[in-house]
Amino acid sequence: MTRMDDLLYFEDFAIGRIFACGSYPVTREEIVEFAREFDPQPHHLDEEAGRRSMLGGLAASGWHVCAITMRLFADHLIAKAAGRGGVGSREARWMKPVRPGDVLRMEAEVVDLKAPRSRPEFGFVTFDCRVFSAREQVALVSMTPIIARRGAP
Amino acid sequence: MTRMDDLLYFEDFAIGRIFACGSYPVTREEIVEFAREFDPQPHHLDEEAGRRSMLGGLAASGWHVCAITMRLFADHLIAKAAGRGGVGSREARWMKPVRPGDVLRMEAEVVDLKAPRSRPEFGFVTFDCRVFSAREQVALVSMTPIIARRGAP
Repeated sequence: MTRMDDLLYFEDFAIGRIFACGSYPVTREEIVEFAREFDPQPHHLDEEAGRRSMLGGLAASGWHVCAITMRLFADHLIAKAAGRGGVGSREARWMKPVRPGDVLRMEAEVVDLKAPRSRPEFGFVTFDCRVFSAREQVALVSMTPIIARRGAP
Repeated sequence: MTRMDDLLYFEDFAIGRIFACGSYPVTREEIVEFAREFDPQPHHLDEEAGRRSMLGGLAASGWHVCAITMRLFADHLIAKAAGRGGVGSREARWMKPVRPGDVLRMEAEVVDLKAPRSRPEFGFVTFDCRVFSAREQVALVSMTPIIARRGAP
């Protein structure tokens, strides 16, 4: 457990600060399971259809990559922060196919801070989450959690 | 099955055209299951924790709402189009909590078209996907599929 006074608050996030957010192994089963439920396009379901597609082989849904990024962000950053939820994502870029067997690594960089005058108890911290396979960067997913200010009720 | 010559090609998507994309019932079980796998924050897992949060009750992960939007987009639009994959999402806005029992309805409006000179075989079509519960708009999720041009190889 994180002790309350170890938590990261809005004031702790400076632009340019980078957080390592661990890694996540992607399996064929999980790629196909996510696609069946949420993105049943042939190139996310079937190796042969993937090979015939622009992706050149079975590849994870881009929204699956976003969900994996969220998991790494939740476990390695939000779990240590005074998070209050999220309002959206300003961008997701799926740059390279994510394949069965890829182990994705993620790092999150603070790129924007907004502290609304009308809500002195929290602020918005925008992160560029960069996702890498062993070979290359495969995605960029923006996250904007709401983070409490220190001492806020 | 959609006959090949019924498919929608890049040329069929004019800015302002709106596609009704069906509906999706959201269950408590699915909200919790997605959160356990991808977004294990307390307000997505537990009713009481949700009540204590800014969300005011158990609510779906925003990335779950994006995945549901993709499912409706795949079933009601991509299934009828000469889709070739996707490159990302320029924005996702989670405007209101999505609750157990909500039946989400989605409509997709064409908001941008890009036909790269260097790739005459396809174009990028950007959609604003507006997601509604029975009460109100709950999300906006941008989708940018690659769509083949008519007669392309």
